[in-house]
Order: sequence, then C-alpha cells, then structure tokens
Amino acid sequence: MLGVDRVGRRDDKIKMLAKIQEAQKGQIAFLSNPKYEHFIYETDATAVIVRRDFVPRKDIRATLVKVEDPYVSFTTLLEEYHKLISFQKAGVEEPCYVGKNSTLGENIYRGAFSYIGNNTSIGNNVKIYPHAYVGDNVRIGNDTILHSGVRIYADTVIGSNCVIHSGTVIGSDGFGFAPQEDGTYKTIPQLGRVVIEDNVAIGANTVIDCATFAGDATLIRSGVKLDNLIQVAHNVEIGRNTVIAAQTGISGSTKVGENCMLAGQVGIAGHLVIANNTSLGAQAGVSKSITREGQRLLGYPVFDIKEYFRSYAVFKKLPDINYRLKELEDKVNALSNHS
Amino acid sequence: MLGVDRVGRRDDKIKMLAKIQEAQKGQIAFLSNPKYEHFIYETDATAVIVRRDFVPRKDIRATLVKVEDPYVSFTTLLEEYHKLISFQKAGVEEPCYVGKNSTLGENIYRGAFSYIGNNTSIGNNVKIYPHAYVGDNVRIGNDTILHSGVRIYADTVIGSNCVIHSGTVIGSDGFGFAPQEDGTYKTIPQLGRVVIEDNVAIGANTVIDCATFAGDATLIRSGVKLDNLIQVAHNVEIGRNTVIAAQTGISGSTKVGENCMLAGQVGIAGHLVIANNTSLGAQAGVSKSITREGQRLLGYPVFDIKEYFRSYAVFKKLPDINYRLKELEDKVNALSNHS
Amino acid sequence: MLGVDRVGRRDDKIKMLAKIQEAQKGQIAFLSNPKYEHFIYETDATAVIVRRDFVPRKDIRATLVKVEDPYVSFTTLLEEYHKLISFQKAGVEEPCYVGKNSTLGENIYRGAFSYIGNNTSIGNNVKIYPHAYVGDNVRIGNDTILHSGVRIYADTVIGSNCVIHSGTVIGSDGFGFAPQEDGTYKTIPQLGRVVIEDNVAIGANTVIDCATFAGDATLIRSGVKLDNLIQVAHNVEIGRNTVIAAQTGISGSTKVGENCMLAGQVGIAGHLVIANNTSLGAQAGVSKSITREGQRLLGYPVFDIKEYFRSYAVFKKLPDINYRLKELEDKVNALSNHS
Repeated sequence: MLGVDRVGRRDDKIKMLAKIQEAQKGQIAFLSNPKYEHFIYETDATAVIVRRDFVPRKDIRATLVKVEDPYVSFTTLLEEYHKLISFQKAGVEEPCYVGKNSTLGENIYRGAFSYIGNNTSIGNNVKIYPHAYVGDNVRIGNDTILHSGVRIYADTVIGSNCVIHSGTVIGSDGFGFAPQEDGTYKTIPQLGRVVIEDNVAIGANTVIDCATFAGDATLIRSGVKLDNLIQVAHNVEIGRNTVIAAQTGISGSTKVGENCMLAGQVGIAGHLVIANNTSLGAQAGVSKSITREGQRLLGYPVFDIKEYFRSYAVFKKLPDINYRLKELEDKVNALSNHS
Repeated sequence: MLGVDRVGRRDDKIKMLAKIQEAQKGQIAFLSNPKYEHFIYETDATAVIVRRDFVPRKDIRATLVKVEDPYVSFTTLLEEYHKLISFQKAGVEEPCYVGKNSTLGENIYRGAFSYIGNNTSIGNNVKIYPHAYVGDNVRIGNDTILHSGVRIYADTVIGSNCVIHSGTVIGSDGFGFAPQEDGTYKTIPQLGRVVIEDNVAIGANTVIDCATFAGDATLIRSGVKLDNLIQVAHNVEIGRNTVIAAQTGISGSTKVGENCMLAGQVGIAGHLVIANNTSLGAQAGVSKSITREGQRLLGYPVFDIKEYFRSYAVFKKLPDINYRLKELEDKVNALSNHS
Repeated sequence: MLGVDRVGRRDDKIKMLAKIQEAQKGQIAFLSNPKYEHFIYETDATAVIVRRDFVPRKDIRATLVKVEDPYVSFTTLLEEYHKLISFQKAGVEEPCYVGKNSTLGENIYRGAFSYIGNNTSIGNNVKIYPHAYVGDNVRIGNDTILHSGVRIYADTVIGSNCVIHSGTVIGSDGFGFAPQEDGTYKTIPQLGRVVIEDNVAIGANTVIDCATFAGDATLIRSGVKLDNLIQVAHNVEIGRNTVIAAQTGISGSTKVGENCMLAGQVGIAGHLVIANNTSLGAQAGVSKSITREGQRLLGYPVFDIKEYFRSYAVFKKLPDINYRLKELEDKVNALSNHS
C-alpha cells in the first residue's frame, strides 16, 4: 500500500499506530522530524516508517519501513485503519423505517429505530446508526456515516465519504422573521436546502441551517472539518478544506474562504466574506469582511493577533497608565504655572 | 386575502415568493423601499406587490398587486405559504408510542418512533416528527410542530402555533448543587417546569431548563424567537417578542424584557433584569441589571456600543500610547530638572 | 434519617422542601444563617430545620427539627427527595432494543425505542429513557440515569449514581486531522474512550469526545458537575468536584484540576494544566497553564479578576485618555520650545 522498502523481519504483526515517543510492541510509528530521532533508538515499536535516505547512527530494534515521506505514509495508514474500524457495522436491525420511493444502495447498515423518509436516495456502504433521521427527498453519497441521532431535514444533499456525529442537525430552518408594526414577527418560510460535498467531517450537536429561498443552498465544500456544537446559519458557504473548532458560530449569508482555520468560540457576523487562509484565534469576533488572505487575527473586532497581544499587554497596565497620566498632568500644570 | 386591487392578467399562476432583485417567472415579489424601484422595470416576476398609490415611470411586465403596505402584505403571504408547506405531513407512522391517559387532538401527525408519555394532552393539527419525545403530564396547544428528536420533559406546557427544531431540549434539570464541607456537591432536585406561550419559535439543539421549585416556571412569553444552541437556565423569563441569536446563554433567574434583540454568543449572568427594547451586540457579557430601556450595548461588561467602539479604537493603539507616555515622562522630567 | 430532636406535632405531613422565605404549609425549610432568623417567626412552613442550640426569641408556629448542621441536613433531605422523584419510572416499554451478550442488572427502566448494543453491561436500578442510545462494549454502574436521546458511543465507561440529560453525546470522535501537502486533511482515527466516574451530573446537549489513542481516556472524575452545551475535547481530564457552567469549551488534552469553578462560555486552549480551586469568570479565555491554586481570573487571556475590572474601568475612558495625552504632548512641546 505504501510502496516501500522494508528492512527487518517479515512476520511481524502490527495491530496499532502510535507516536514514536509512546509506541509499544505490536505498533507502528513514524519518524519525520529529525528532532525526534533519538526516540527511534529506544522505541519498543515493532516498526517505524522512515525517510528512504535515513541512516541510523546506532542500533535500532524496530523494523524500518522506508518511504518517500514518512508523515504522508503514516497518515495514509491512519486513514486506512480508520476505514477498517468504521466499517464493522453491517446489516439491518429491526425495527427501522423506510418511506416510499426511496432507493438504498448496497451494503448499507441501518440501525434499530433509524428513519428514512420518502423519495430519498442512499449510496453504497452508508452507515445509518440507531435513531438517525433522514427526511424526504434527501440524497446521500457512498461510504458516508450518520451516527446515532443525526437529523437530516428534507431536501438535504450529502456527498460521499462524509462522517456526521451524534445529535448534529442539518437543514433546520434559518432564523428569519419579518418585524411587524405591533412588535411581533412573522415567520419567513425557509425554502432552501443544505448541500454538503465529499470528505466532510462534522462533530456532534452541530447545527447547519438551510438556505432561505428555494433554489439556494447553505454550502459546505469538500474537505471541510467542523467540530462539535458549531452554528452555521442560513446561506453560509464554507470553502474547501477549511477547519473550524468547537462552539464557533457563523451568521447568515457569510462566505468563509478555503483553507481557513477558525479556533473555538469564534463569532462571525452575517453577510461577510472571509478571505482564503485566514486564521482566527479563539473567541475572536468578526464584524467586517476580511479581504487580505493569510492573516492571523484576534479580538473583537479582530485585528492582527500579535498586535492584539501587544495592546492587551498594555491593557493589563491601564490603571498604572491612568495614574501616570494624571501625575504628568499635574507636573506639566505646575511647570506651566511656574514658567 | 390581502384585500387588493390587481392590475394585469387574471390567470397567472404564482408558485413562490422572492426578492424583487431575484424574482423569476411564476414568482411574486414586493416593492416597498423606493430605492429598489428600478428593479420593477426589469423583473421577470409574474407579479409585484406595490403601494396603492404607486405610479410606474416606465412599462412593467409584471402584474401589479396594489395594497396599503406592500411589506406587511408580503410577510402575510410568506406566513400563509409557510403554513401550507408545514402542513404536508399527516397521519401516524408505525411504530410509535403513546402512554396511558393521554389525549390527542384531531389531525395530528405522529412520526415513526415518536414517543408520548402518560397523562399528556396534545392539541389539534400538532406535528410530532420521528424520534420526538414528549414526557408525562405535558400540555401542547394547537398547530405546534415538534421536529425530529425534540425532547420535552415531564410537566412542560407549550402553547399554540409554536415550532421547535430538532435536538432542542425543554425542561431538563436546572444546574443546582449544594456545596458540602468535604468539597462534594449534593444535587438540588429541580421540581419546577417550563411554560412556553403561543407563537414561539425555537431553533435546533437549544436547551431550556426547568425551574427549581415546584410551582415555579422558566417562562418563554408569546412571540419569542430563539435561534440554535441557546442556553436558557432555570427560572429565566424571556419577555414577549424578544429575539435571541445563536449560542447565547442566559443564567438562572434572569428576567429579559420585551422586544429585546440579543445577538449571537451573548452571555448574561444570573438574577438580573434586562429592560425592554435592549439590544446586545455579539459576544456581549452582561454582569449587572440593565434598567434603562432601549440601549444598544457591547463589551464585557457591557456599555454603550458606540463608546465601546471608540474605546476599542484606542485599545488598538495602546502600545503607541504607552510609548508616548514614557517619552513624555522623560521630557517632563528633563524640563523639571532643567527648570 | 437526620438523627434529630423534634419539637412539635408528630402527625404533620411534609410534601415538599422550600426556602424559609417562601415556604408554605406542608413544606419544610431550614434556618442556618442568623440573617434569616426573622423569617422563622412569620413562616407558614409546617417544619423548620434549626441548629440544636437554637433558642427562639418569639413564638414559632412551625415544628422545629433540631440538628447539628441545618444546611447539611436540608441538602440531605433534598438529595433523598431527588432520588424518590427520579425513581418513579420502572419496567420495560416496547419496542426497545438490546444487542447480543449484554448483561442488564436488576430493576432497570428501559423506555420505548431505547437502544443497547452488544457486549454492554448495565448496573442495577439504571434508567434508560426513550430514544437513549448505548453502543457496544459500554459499562454503566448502578443507579445511573440516561435521559431521552442521550448518546453513549462504544467502549465508554460510566460510573454509579450519574445523571446525563437529553441530547448529550459521550464518546464521539475527537477533532483530529492530519494536514496534507495539497491542503486536504486525513482523518486521524480516534481509538480511545471516555471514562466517567461516580456521582457525575451532565446537562443537556453537552459533548464529550473520546481520547485519540487506544488505551487512553477522556476522564471525568467523580463528583464533577457539567451544565448544558459544554464541549469537552479528546483526552481532557476534569478533576474531582469541579463545576462547569453552560457553553464552556475545553480543548484537547487539557487537564482541569479539582474543585474548580468555571463560569459560562469560558474557553480553554489545548494541552494546558489548570490548578485546583481555580475560578474562571464568564467568557474568560485561557491560553496558558494556570499553576498557582485558588486564583479568580477573567479576560482573554485571563488575569486576576479584580485587576481585569480595574483595567476595564480605564478601557471605558480610553478616548478621553487619548485626548488628554495629545493635549499634554502639545503643552510639553510648547514648554520645551519655550524653555
């Protein structure tokens, strides 16, 4: 699978992957960063993936697996291992529910009390855990996993090779209400849908609202990784390979770029555009569009993260600064009167 | 329904509502703000709702629907449309569960795996989606919708015409623990309930805890709109027509006034009173009661939002201010020594 | 149960506990703080728990229950009462699901549509409400309650006398992805588990992720109390009797000490250690380890809460300070030129 040279015994059994500083017998680790080289001479790992040109300076007990790029090979193994352990569940547990005119692919796991609505299409090798709910007119690609208690509203589209964790809700109504003169609100019907592309991972108890107007979609591009308890409002678009940590919220119609990294508890206002490769620190608040790519930002509203910390260092001394300013004023007044 | 004059063909079929700048054939839009007038001369909308006294300055292809107030008429249509599309589900899917001594109104939808406990009363036209849970001794009014996986604990009261989205929990235990001398905590039993009045909308994965003492209630007044992932603690009261955005949290026993607008990720401490018409910016933190009505506030703790932004503008320059202050001190010391 | 002297009628019926300032006939209250003594002469409570050496200064209608420590006795009664009302549910509602090779203790309540996987062990007197999901290889101790829609992933261990509220997810995948050169991420399989010790209470819609490596655990120590909508990432450890309010998030591999109090919406970065008895104010952000015990902290990043408020008081005057600094510079320049 890795296209490798191997130096060592052929009959080793590897059961697990581990970090080189922690690996035990029966485990495989990797060495990429030279900083960690000393671990390879002490490790109990059964095998270690190393760079093809690696030359040991001492004896090594572990079998060496020589590859172009040890880190890439290790993550490939991780992913294969992940697939193996994810694909244990199979078959149909009763009772479970399937509506009318729905088409189910091959080799699907449907847990007890799972629900599939009408006119829905489910790809091959999909796993629908107990209590997962899939509404009407939903399309789900191959190899996707819906954990227990996931809620997929009607009309949602989900790609292949996605994982959605328990309690996450996809396609609930956007938060749209039209104010009336008497102070009440009328509900604006939410007629759009959510489209999730391939290779998207979504944590537990996250919410992604549907778009407001028919024909529109809240859009999660391929490779996006969302953590737990995240809020994604109506008509948001999240660009390819963007990673968002827990409890962050993105308001309606905001478009987040590609390869962004949003830390936890970040808040982004509505109708903004966030440039590609933007990095937002924890609890950052974004109230204006970010147009320049590749910035690292913090604060509310956000600005450069290093400048934030410099300002904050002075913020902690503000009582002293206030005192010194007063003292200086007195001195200068004295000097003015004196002169 | 709108009490209108109509100018144009009688046999147009309208299938959808849309914004005037986006409307297509078969759709109806509205023109209220003169700023958008130019769109009416280009739109492909089949019909446009306009003010009764509207006089076109050019040719218009769309049928004009003349009313007193186009915005009000449009939102009325939106709401009617919303009811239409919400009322598609009907009947009973099996298996579903109903306990003893519960009374069910007419025309109720009960999805597969929905659960209704004992001594519970459900009004007419209620929709209980798959996996929704309604505990014992609950009362629910007419026309209310509980989406898939909603959890209603025992003794909760919910009014008419409410919508509650997936994964939302109503009536869970308030967070009450009595500290003991050995550092452990004893659980304070939570014996109150939650009362939700009419026309309340609640998003997905929100939590509303029950009141602590029997006879008390956590109270959501009529017309309140709550977004996703909101925390409403025990004994909180939220006044009529208050709107709260996602991920905001309100601590125990706080009373939020009427017609307030709370942005996302706001936090309010316990045992406070928030005046009517208060507007809180995103991520605001409230640690004291707000007694004057109609303020717009931000920061932690909150103060006037414009003043916050003025202070924050200086915060960003604090390293410079710190430097200038030091420089000034040196100068003044030199002058003092000199004089 | 309390080992008490009793002064008054033997045939009073007590149905409820209440605060002394609110107690009615049929209720029992307690008097511990002398500040509240005046209430005891007016109360309609049927009984009041008082200190053994309490000597009334006026007539009291209520029966007095004399104990060593009234507060401790009252909380003991609260806890007993809590057990009574929690233990009403019993038996098995159909349909519900139990997998292969699972062992169930005595006197378990299993609600309709509850799910128990394979090789799982459930203790005595456990209550598994409707729609609760318990995966494979899970162990649950005695007297624990899983409310409706709780999700327990495979391999989780939960102690005795725990309560977990609706929608909470235990054991979902940690947020771990290995970046690739092309900007995509590979999923790092999450192979560890969650271990929850005894007497832990967890609110609704909270998420606790499993540990990354096999053999490791995300660890919630005995007596911990977690509120609603909290994020606990992979490999976190929370020390005994620590209390955490709603919407707080703790990033991966951070170790929170014992007897800490974290307010709502707090965020803690990953790989930190938080000392015992640390108190974090609402919305605090922690980016470095806290090594000294017993501090009260606020801000982002956190520092002493009193100093935070002192700095913040000056922050609110920053525009004025900025103006005064400019004015002073002008004056000093004038003086310099002059001299």
